[in-house]
Amino acid sequence: MISSTTNPHVKQVHALQTKRLAREREGAFVVEGIRWAREVVAAGLPVRQVLHTDHLDERGRGLVNSLARLGAEVRIVSDKVMAACTDTQSPPGILAVLPIPELVVADSLTLALVVDGLTDPGNMGTLLRTALAVGVQAVFITHGTVDPFNPKVVRGAMGAHLHLPIIPLEDATLAHRLEGLTIWLAEAGGGEPYTAVDWRRPSALVIGGEARGPGQALRRIASGKVHIPMAVAAESLNAAIAAAVILFEVVRQREPT
Amino acid sequence: MISSTTNPHVKQVHALQTKRLAREREGAFVVEGIRWAREVVAAGLPVRQVLHTDHLDERGRGLVNSLARLGAEVRIVSDKVMAACTDTQSPPGILAVLPIPELVVADSLTLALVVDGLTDPGNMGTLLRTALAVGVQAVFITHGTVDPFNPKVVRGAMGAHLHLPIIPLEDATLAHRLEGLTIWLAEAGGGEPYTAVDWRRPSALVIGGEARGPGQALRRIASGKVHIPMAVAAESLNAAIAAAVILFEVVRQREPT
Repeated sequence: MISSTTNPHVKQVHALQTKRLAREREGAFVVEGIRWAREVVAAGLPVRQVLHTDHLDERGRGLVNSLARLGAEVRIVSDKVMAACTDTQSPPGILAVLPIPELVVADSLTLALVVDGLTDPGNMGTLLRTALAVGVQAVFITHGTVDPFNPKVVRGAMGAHLHLPIIPLEDATLAHRLEGLTIWLAEAGGGEPYTAVDWRRPSALVIGGEARGPGQALRRIASGKVHIPMAVAAESLNAAIAAAVILFEVVRQREPT
Repeated sequence: MISSTTNPHVKQVHALQTKRLAREREGAFVVEGIRWAREVVAAGLPVRQVLHTDHLDERGRGLVNSLARLGAEVRIVSDKVMAACTDTQSPPGILAVLPIPELVVADSLTLALVVDGLTDPGNMGTLLRTALAVGVQAVFITHGTVDPFNPKVVRGAMGAHLHLPIIPLEDATLAHRLEGLTIWLAEAGGGEPYTAVDWRRPSALVIGGEARGPGQALRRIASGKVHIPMAVAAESLNAAIAAAVILFEVVRQREPT
C-alpha cells in the first residue's frame, strides 16, 4: 500500500488534478468514483493507472479487475493519499488516470457546439453532459475557456468525455473547422428568438461566457444571433441553462413527427 | 472596526451562513457581494445588518448608504472577520443580513414549480434563477429538499429570492396548496414527452432529486409524468437543466403567436 504523498505516482496524479499544463503535457486526465469507473469500463477505453483504497466493496473490486484488463497499473493507497489526490471534499474509494480520448469527428457535422470564454467549471461540466444527451457531434473549445479536462468539469459531465469529441479551436482554422454549418451566437436579447431559427439545417451553436458573450473571431463568421425570450425581461440565464434550452429546441425541430 | 470573530454580530452572521436552524429561528439569511447588494437596493426590501470591509470603492460606499436607508445597521469589519463570515473562497467586500421575504402568492396560480428532494445547492440556485426568468409565480419546497436560503443556493439564484415566493410544502396541505393546477412530475423516461403536454392550462411542474425523483405524496395527486426525449437514449440530464427545458416549453406554448 502506498502511504506517502511523495510517491511519484501519487505526485503525478496530484499534478494532473491541479495543473492544466500537466494534463496537456501528459495527454491525460483523472476521473473519480465508482460511477465514473463504470463508465470507463462500459466504454472499453484504455486506462493508464488506477489508485484505490482498501475499503472497496465487491462491486468496486470487480471494477478494478475490469480496469486492469483495460491496461491500468493498479495501486492500493492509504486514505491520506487518496485525500491528497482527490478534487472533492469526500474522497472516493477509486480514481483512474485516462489518456485524453482521441474521438473521431464525423465528416459532415449536423450539430456542433462551440464554447467560447466560459470559465465556470461546473457550468462547463453540465454543458458537456447536456451536449451528449442532445446528440451534439463535436464540442469546439476556444482559448480563454476553462480546461474541459479540469476535475470539476469532469465531475459534472458524468461520462461525456468518453463519447463526445472535445476539440480545441484556433482562430486561424475556425472557419475551416465550422465549414458547412450555419453558425448562431447565443446572446441575451440579440437577434432571432431561438424558436424562430430553422435548426433542421446543419448548425453550430456558440455559447460564450456569461459576462461578455462570444468573442470577435466567431462574431465575424456567424450567420446571426439567437436569444431566449423570457417572461421577466430583466432576468438572465446561467450559460449552461441557456445552451440546454436552445439545444433541446434543435432536437424538437428535428424529431420525426 | 470589528476585528474579533467572537463579536456577537459576527457570530450571528456566521451562524446564519452555516446553520439552517439559525436561519429558520431568526427568519433571516445572508447575501454576499456587490451584485446582490444592488439587487437588494433595487428591490427596496428591508435589511437588518450590513458588514463591509474598508476596501469598498465609491460604488460600494454608495450601496452601503442605500442599504442603511433600508434600515440596516452598518458595521465595518476586518478582512479576517469578513473571511470568517463568507461562504465563498474569495471574501466579498460587503454582505447583508435580510429577513426572509414574505412575498404574496397570487390567488389563482397559472404556473408553479414544486421541488421535491433536490439536495444539490448549486442546482437549486440555478433552478430558482431560471424559475424567475420564465415567470413561475411560486416555488414550493418539500421536506428533504436543500434549504433554499443556504448560502450556495442564494449565490446561484442571482436575486430570485427577492421576487419569487418560496414556500415550504407540507404533505398534509399539499393538495390544497396546488388546487386548480394540473400537476406534472418530471421523470426520466416516464409518461408524455414534454412537448406533447398542453401547458396553456394552469400547471405545476414537480422536479425531484436526480437519484430518486419525486416522492409518494406528490405522485398520488399528480395528473401524469413528463419526460424529455433525448437523442442519446441512455443519457440523463442535470435536474436544473431538465426543469429549464420543460419550463421554456411552457413559455413557448404560452407565447402570443
